[in-house]
Amino acid sequence: MEKERIARVAERLKAMELYQTLISSPASLFYLTGKWIFPGERMVALYLNDLGEVTLFANRLFALRGTLDIPLVEYDDTEDCIALLAERLMPGEIGIDKDWPSRFTIRLMEARSDLTPVIGSPCIDQTRLYKDEKELKLMRESSLKNDASIQQTISLIRAGMKESQLADIYLRQSAAQGSSGPSFEPLVCFGANCAEPHHVTDQTLLREGDAVIIDVGLTWQSYCSDMTRTVFFGKASDEQKRVYDIVKAANAAGRAAVHPGVPMKEIDRAARKVIEDAGYGKYFIHRTGHGIGLEVHEFPDVSASSEAIARPGMCFSVEPGIYLPGKFGVRVEDLVAVTEDGCETLNHAPRDLMEIL
Amino acid sequence: MEKERIARVAERLKAMELYQTLISSPASLFYLTGKWIFPGERMVALYLNDLGEVTLFANRLFALRGTLDIPLVEYDDTEDCIALLAERLMPGEIGIDKDWPSRFTIRLMEARSDLTPVIGSPCIDQTRLYKDEKELKLMRESSLKNDASIQQTISLIRAGMKESQLADIYLRQSAAQGSSGPSFEPLVCFGANCAEPHHVTDQTLLREGDAVIIDVGLTWQSYCSDMTRTVFFGKASDEQKRVYDIVKAANAAGRAAVHPGVPMKEIDRAARKVIEDAGYGKYFIHRTGHGIGLEVHEFPDVSASSEAIARPGMCFSVEPGIYLPGKFGVRVEDLVAVTEDGCETLNHAPRDLMEIL
Repeated sequence: MEKERIARVAERLKAMELYQTLISSPASLFYLTGKWIFPGERMVALYLNDLGEVTLFANRLFALRGTLDIPLVEYDDTEDCIALLAERLMPGEIGIDKDWPSRFTIRLMEARSDLTPVIGSPCIDQTRLYKDEKELKLMRESSLKNDASIQQTISLIRAGMKESQLADIYLRQSAAQGSSGPSFEPLVCFGANCAEPHHVTDQTLLREGDAVIIDVGLTWQSYCSDMTRTVFFGKASDEQKRVYDIVKAANAAGRAAVHPGVPMKEIDRAARKVIEDAGYGKYFIHRTGHGIGLEVHEFPDVSASSEAIARPGMCFSVEPGIYLPGKFGVRVEDLVAVTEDGCETLNHAPRDLMEIL
Repeated sequence: MEKERIARVAERLKAMELYQTLISSPASLFYLTGKWIFPGERMVALYLNDLGEVTLFANRLFALRGTLDIPLVEYDDTEDCIALLAERLMPGEIGIDKDWPSRFTIRLMEARSDLTPVIGSPCIDQTRLYKDEKELKLMRESSLKNDASIQQTISLIRAGMKESQLADIYLRQSAAQGSSGPSFEPLVCFGANCAEPHHVTDQTLLREGDAVIIDVGLTWQSYCSDMTRTVFFGKASDEQKRVYDIVKAANAAGRAAVHPGVPMKEIDRAARKVIEDAGYGKYFIHRTGHGIGLEVHEFPDVSASSEAIARPGMCFSVEPGIYLPGKFGVRVEDLVAVTEDGCETLNHAPRDLMEIL
């Protein structure tokens, strides 16, 4: 088990004035135990108290006995797992994982009327927000592999291709890089599809003059990458060039704004301002970015309404875009890690305008 | 909206002595509204009371306005969706979807201390248990397409193939049948892998004398199929033939036991007895089957501990197997629908021993 991480979570639990919590999200359990457990319909919960004491409650079918250096209470399908858990809890407030299925929380409340459930997730989510050295190394490696995969993919763009074919090429490239799989379904958009925020990669054929958005990520040793490049198939029009340069500048401005102590909303503002000043403000229709790590969407939120402040160890995307309905769209996305004096950009694939001729 | 289904759920709600509940699972919402909504981190809930009155609470981003003939309360990301929901609820007990993330339930309890949450899912799960004519038609079609896909797949088995290649062939065949996708990750096992209950399709090569398990399903118009066939690559050994015949007989006995009024545990018993009587009881290491419909695993559970009783309209799998560690395994799985006087088997692909020579 990750003793130091557990100690940090216990500290945050204390700061929340909570003395006990249940952690159940697979990514959080992996973070603390080193093991992915996917419970399906069954119950799994890590009990953690403010002294840093932990006990894992898990179904015997998960076959964890002997694989973890953590106190383990196993149950089988004939046992009442909630009763087993209920008898170990102290009265009063109990933190509950924000995603725990309500059936467990409700049954726990029915079994123990002296418990008051509160959302316990901030203690673990706020700890996971700050990547430690081991995590930063894997985040860097994951993004380097993503850089290589997207560059290989771009080099294989050919006339007459379908979006889904290019997505498959990315999947093969990322597998060749040793990735265990994509961190999300690859998104490839051609032409006017680039302007549709909810487009799903389909059988659209690549045509001369199309913008091509490739928004992809892979997992490497459980850590996610996520990046976007936009290239042009054939000569880019003047409008395409102009829009591309604005988005590229917005991406650079967003990343340049990342320093410890800077609020996320100012990072969003820095990227958004470039686009607004160029007169395209109403075509940048989403937030600037999102946190990433063991999951592809984590805290912090990089948006105009985010109250989070950049601190060393945070990893998030900077991904401004301009979407011109019926015409084309451009997005340029990189991951950054906040450092002591600014930020490190985890992606290194070129951002210069690329025309595939 | 599906008025008749809503009326049936309201009847069951009344029978539970509940007068209000929240339904949030995507499959249940589809069942009642005809629309798949995947809320991600956001909240969606259908309020339903014992008079059959419904209101859907959903984020404006889901873009439901104008697409549903159901009263709709929309919220956006700047609004407190729980407060909006809380003010519409009557005091007292409130049914909660078993899978609703606990953060919503806890916030609802914090907003309204006069509410007592109870698990409300049985009213909808027990209604979905009985497929209506429209659903049975789609269940039949889904299984017919699965039959065709598995038979095409089996016809393309070749020496030197990898498990993953055969799984990909199935995916292409099912797509050619018009399926929108698999109902679960296709499971292909060769040789000794057939005996491993937790095997995941991998790069294992097909060798002469291997048993081949193909456990696959597709979705058709939102309805799931699920079937298993076991074939032999090359001449089957005497032991393989013996085991195959036992499993085939157990599958037939399980299906023959299905009549209205028969407990699920007796259906499990009927299949299991064939295997036990042949001396292989300890090698049949899982339940006999599971319900299926909009989701690949639904109620009822077809196991020794199941209290459910077969009733017309129920659809479930009958999938006995024998798994000989280090050697091979056999499973034969069909879906059945309970009828007024027995059952209809939804799969028609042959079950005779097949040797691919």
